[in-house]
Amino acid sequence: MTDTAPPAAVPTPIPAPDQRVERLAREHLDGLAKPLGSLGRLEDLAAWISACQASVPPRPLDRVRAIVLAGDHGVAEHGVSAYPREVTPAMVHTFVQGRAAATVLAAQHGIDLRIYDLGVDDDLDGAPEEVTRYKVRRSSAPLHLTDALTADEARQAWDAGVEITAQVIADGTDLLIIGDLGIGNTTPSACLIAASLGLPAELVTGAGTGVAGEALQHKTDLVAAALERVGDRAQDPWQRLVALGSADLVAGVAAMITAASARVPILLDGLIAVAEAVTAEDLAPGVMAWCRAGHRSTEPGQRLALEKFGLTPVLDASMRLGEGSGALAAVPLVRSAVLLMRSMALLSDL
Amino acid sequence: MTDTAPPAAVPTPIPAPDQRVERLAREHLDGLAKPLGSLGRLEDLAAWISACQASVPPRPLDRVRAIVLAGDHGVAEHGVSAYPREVTPAMVHTFVQGRAAATVLAAQHGIDLRIYDLGVDDDLDGAPEEVTRYKVRRSSAPLHLTDALTADEARQAWDAGVEITAQVIADGTDLLIIGDLGIGNTTPSACLIAASLGLPAELVTGAGTGVAGEALQHKTDLVAAALERVGDRAQDPWQRLVALGSADLVAGVAAMITAASARVPILLDGLIAVAEAVTAEDLAPGVMAWCRAGHRSTEPGQRLALEKFGLTPVLDASMRLGEGSGALAAVPLVRSAVLLMRSMALLSDL
Repeated sequence: MTDTAPPAAVPTPIPAPDQRVERLAREHLDGLAKPLGSLGRLEDLAAWISACQASVPPRPLDRVRAIVLAGDHGVAEHGVSAYPREVTPAMVHTFVQGRAAATVLAAQHGIDLRIYDLGVDDDLDGAPEEVTRYKVRRSSAPLHLTDALTADEARQAWDAGVEITAQVIADGTDLLIIGDLGIGNTTPSACLIAASLGLPAELVTGAGTGVAGEALQHKTDLVAAALERVGDRAQDPWQRLVALGSADLVAGVAAMITAASARVPILLDGLIAVAEAVTAEDLAPGVMAWCRAGHRSTEPGQRLALEKFGLTPVLDASMRLGEGSGALAAVPLVRSAVLLMRSMALLSDL
Repeated sequence: MTDTAPPAAVPTPIPAPDQRVERLAREHLDGLAKPLGSLGRLEDLAAWISACQASVPPRPLDRVRAIVLAGDHGVAEHGVSAYPREVTPAMVHTFVQGRAAATVLAAQHGIDLRIYDLGVDDDLDGAPEEVTRYKVRRSSAPLHLTDALTADEARQAWDAGVEITAQVIADGTDLLIIGDLGIGNTTPSACLIAASLGLPAELVTGAGTGVAGEALQHKTDLVAAALERVGDRAQDPWQRLVALGSADLVAGVAAMITAASARVPILLDGLIAVAEAVTAEDLAPGVMAWCRAGHRSTEPGQRLALEKFGLTPVLDASMRLGEGSGALAAVPLVRSAVLLMRSMALLSDL
């Protein structure tokens, strides 16, 4: 493997969910005791889950799991966030205590949530060994000045994402959520979306934790500088990840490809998850067919990427907290879609 | 009481949720370990529930209850629905079996759901006595030709709504949903919204169960004819209910006023519930402050009424099934809002 080669394990292309089963699912939905199409987007979700499982009706989504990947970003030292990077390790400890938004939502919905430190700029003393065992480095490098990772680090993060996800899938997963935690994470994510979709920095850069005015312009300038620095290397999705990603983002991309390859449907969270998904699609075409959008965040890059792939979010509640929270909040709706399809009377029963 | 007098029991005005507590709730939300405002609309819901309960943080919404009111509509004999009215009694039996969309969602979310026949055009043989004990009449009269109810029938339906809701509240209710079931129910609901908001039939009439083209124009014409027939009597909200409502709609209005008077928050469903809410607000100003919109239906009248009252729906998933289903599907989000407020770490803990 040369220094610029992507991991050999990328399977491509990814087989699609079963289109024949999706048609059968639509027919089944049309026969339920309700006006035709009246469950709206829940019918789309039910048909998609049917196609992913190749089963009409689909099994209930009892085993929903979330993987939250944590990491710091060198660019956060350069004024792109409303919060200092010391918040990242503090939030990992809050996760371990079950007092983060994502862990509260996971507990509400009976979702197994696991958090992993891929690149937090702290030793996380006191955190469980299973949280820290996949750490690649402390923080990424500032991506507007130099590559965020070395190729070796990116491959290490990739392998971590594959291993973490394979374990979660082995434990039984009906639906997977990939969350992300780390001050500064919207900046590399905006870069990845810009590079994948061929969009300028101004269109993909958003408020993140809450920057506005001059600070938002500064963040936009750093995204533009990073894209300019990387130039044509950003055409290659693996080079793009090395140059503009981070350990947590690389692991997230690997996680999505691993899940889609294993026919596990993915409910996307906000900007970071969608940046991972578009990069995963570039690396392994077909991944996006295993994804649906859990929510629409307030980040413009997320909206543009979802539009490109024709994904209408389950929720649109102006959430922008990260951690997987938007997708976690949307899980009951996806479960409703499946339960309605399974349990409603048929028109022919009336 | 004269024949045109509204029920004496209408309490007015309704005291508002506690505005001081709402401000304290906003301060509490701002202190949680998350970027300011990043839970989006969930923060609005949490602050509203706090104000309704006069408690920061609010108690969890363990006891969510739904009342589904069933009735037929004489206008349904005149080509306003894609389905025959025989579907109404069949759906009541489906509710009793737990195989309706609303009962499946209620079971998923641990919501106590009770269905009552106020005006189904069938004796509902075999249905439990508690379902049929409040029956006012079989079907309403065709509202474009004559008043839908007599004043006595309307008062009887009102008393039923008060009694049903008082019982539900006595059993303990943290959040109430009023659903409706009955072929033709979007036609009187569109009339009530048009009369309350002063809008023409063309703006408030929608597809209902799925009418389009000429059938939709015919439905619009019937709404216009009904409004024309009633004339200035529609200015008075009680006269409007007698002339353009139905037993189930009158009971729904009474239910909402009863709940708001008892400081019980209401999660609104689609067109029918919103028609009841705007009528309740006209009868007893202040009711709407106890309401939030569970979902945006595809009915134009619902959207216009929500806009008038500044209510942004929790869900916007193109649902139009009725039965309370949109609000029922939204319950986990309202519960999430409360749980996040109760359980998240504070910024000052980090």
